[in-house]
Amino acid sequence: MGEASLALQAALRQVAVEIDRQFDLLLPVPQDPRADLYRAMRHAAIGGGKRLRPLLVMATAQIFGVDRACAARVGTAVECIHVYSLIHDDLPAMDDDDIRRGKPTVHRAFGEAAAILAGDCLHALAFEVLAAEATHPDPFVRIELSGALAHAAGPAGMAGGQMMDLEAEKASFDLPTVTRLQAMKTGALIACAVESGAILGRIPPEGRTGLRGYARDLGLAFQIADDILDAEGDEEAAGKKLRKDAGRGKETFLSLLGLDRAREQARLLVRQAVEHLHAFGSEADLLRDIARYVMERDR
Amino acid sequence: MGEASLALQAALRQVAVEIDRQFDLLLPVPQDPRADLYRAMRHAAIGGGKRLRPLLVMATAQIFGVDRACAARVGTAVECIHVYSLIHDDLPAMDDDDIRRGKPTVHRAFGEAAAILAGDCLHALAFEVLAAEATHPDPFVRIELSGALAHAAGPAGMAGGQMMDLEAEKASFDLPTVTRLQAMKTGALIACAVESGAILGRIPPEGRTGLRGYARDLGLAFQIADDILDAEGDEEAAGKKLRKDAGRGKETFLSLLGLDRAREQARLLVRQAVEHLHAFGSEADLLRDIARYVMERDR
Repeated sequence: MGEASLALQAALRQVAVEIDRQFDLLLPVPQDPRADLYRAMRHAAIGGGKRLRPLLVMATAQIFGVDRACAARVGTAVECIHVYSLIHDDLPAMDDDDIRRGKPTVHRAFGEAAAILAGDCLHALAFEVLAAEATHPDPFVRIELSGALAHAAGPAGMAGGQMMDLEAEKASFDLPTVTRLQAMKTGALIACAVESGAILGRIPPEGRTGLRGYARDLGLAFQIADDILDAEGDEEAAGKKLRKDAGRGKETFLSLLGLDRAREQARLLVRQAVEHLHAFGSEADLLRDIARYVMERDR
Repeated sequence: MGEASLALQAALRQVAVEIDRQFDLLLPVPQDPRADLYRAMRHAAIGGGKRLRPLLVMATAQIFGVDRACAARVGTAVECIHVYSLIHDDLPAMDDDDIRRGKPTVHRAFGEAAAILAGDCLHALAFEVLAAEATHPDPFVRIELSGALAHAAGPAGMAGGQMMDLEAEKASFDLPTVTRLQAMKTGALIACAVESGAILGRIPPEGRTGLRGYARDLGLAFQIADDILDAEGDEEAAGKKLRKDAGRGKETFLSLLGLDRAREQARLLVRQAVEHLHAFGSEADLLRDIARYVMERDR
């Protein structure tokens, strides 16, 4: 986090505390045979991760003066989806990873069956959180959030992108296909986080163009940075296994563009992302800081 | 289906056609690397199953004169959750089943990774369907449906019950614990189907007591009948592997009560379920027929 602005560092710290607190409240371990299920969810959900998606919800919502507690709950719902996807992606049948966020993956710590169910439970929990009146008093806002998140998580978004990613090991994708894959696999949920902030701010779809452009470019820059991190990063700092893409013969932004052009492309995307915010004043500075930060992070 | 009333037989046929049609419309196979993901979802979702849960949504909604197309969409959402749970339950790390609804299970036909993702996608799709304006014009109805389904699917419902079921292989549960397990594992989604019909009918929670009692007793009767089917049924008619519980040393209603008392208990529950509908006239006859049918089915 060395290169994050002071304001961003403070925001990252604050959102980390807030999201941990939300998960702690949502997931009390019951004294019954489901105890390990809850422990598995807590293991995955609490005390780790950059919390980029909740931060995007909250930083966007803040532009429009949205109540911070509402935004934190919506950020938690989006993070539920992100965490469930990590649990399932790490499974032996998928990426078969042993380490995540510096800890054993859920199936290593609790077994495969509990890991599948813990992912499924966090998936359902996201929509239970969004449906609760405590999240937002207006049912129209809640159902719009719910629809946006379901779309971003499903076959046209994150899970569809993950399927393309599995196919990428067998095929040889070109740059437009890799771009589409990544726009779905990581981009859709990042875009949904920003969109959720705008929905909370009651900005109608036609008023979200700038934010959508920001989120799209941010998502791609984030993924290119992730590819670079996979190739060049430090496993200990990243808290997960690296050097995976090359070992599987998968085309990535890095393999298709080379390191220099990939880095240049990511910088260009960050600049573009920031430019999409031109209609906003200093109230969008945190979003600008986030865009710059995605290139500098080490995990 | 030999013992189903003529009205129920017609309703079962009609709902089967309608739900297949909904899934066919929702899941067009794309011409891109996600094709197998959609094929896997279609394999699991189309052309099989009793469609008991959509039927319960529609039969309950019909009591209150709800538009049939709305009820069919909500029934499809509930069935999305049921089908996803079957895909995940069949995985090698869970029940490790090869046959479901007379066909190879999804992981046998498409591989484990695609099966995990197909389940995840149907899970998300359920909430996308509920959020769509086409499902119901009133956002309050849609978000109430969404919250009820998320709760029924999550750790306090179906997935929590599935976790208890896994633990049942290690522990020796007593009758109250098995009852609670089954009330969560299969009962929660059955109850949600009936509740969804009442939500569509704009019946406030305090007006749903009879229907809730019906659904609770129906769910338990259904599960006892399922246990009996597992022990006594014909694998070909059932379209899935039977005799699984005994092989795993799991306590069930059958192992705890014995065949005669289990059958008697199920019959009592069916009678009770029907009695819970005393406030309704002939408009609830289909729900009554469904309750009687759960004891007679062979799959």
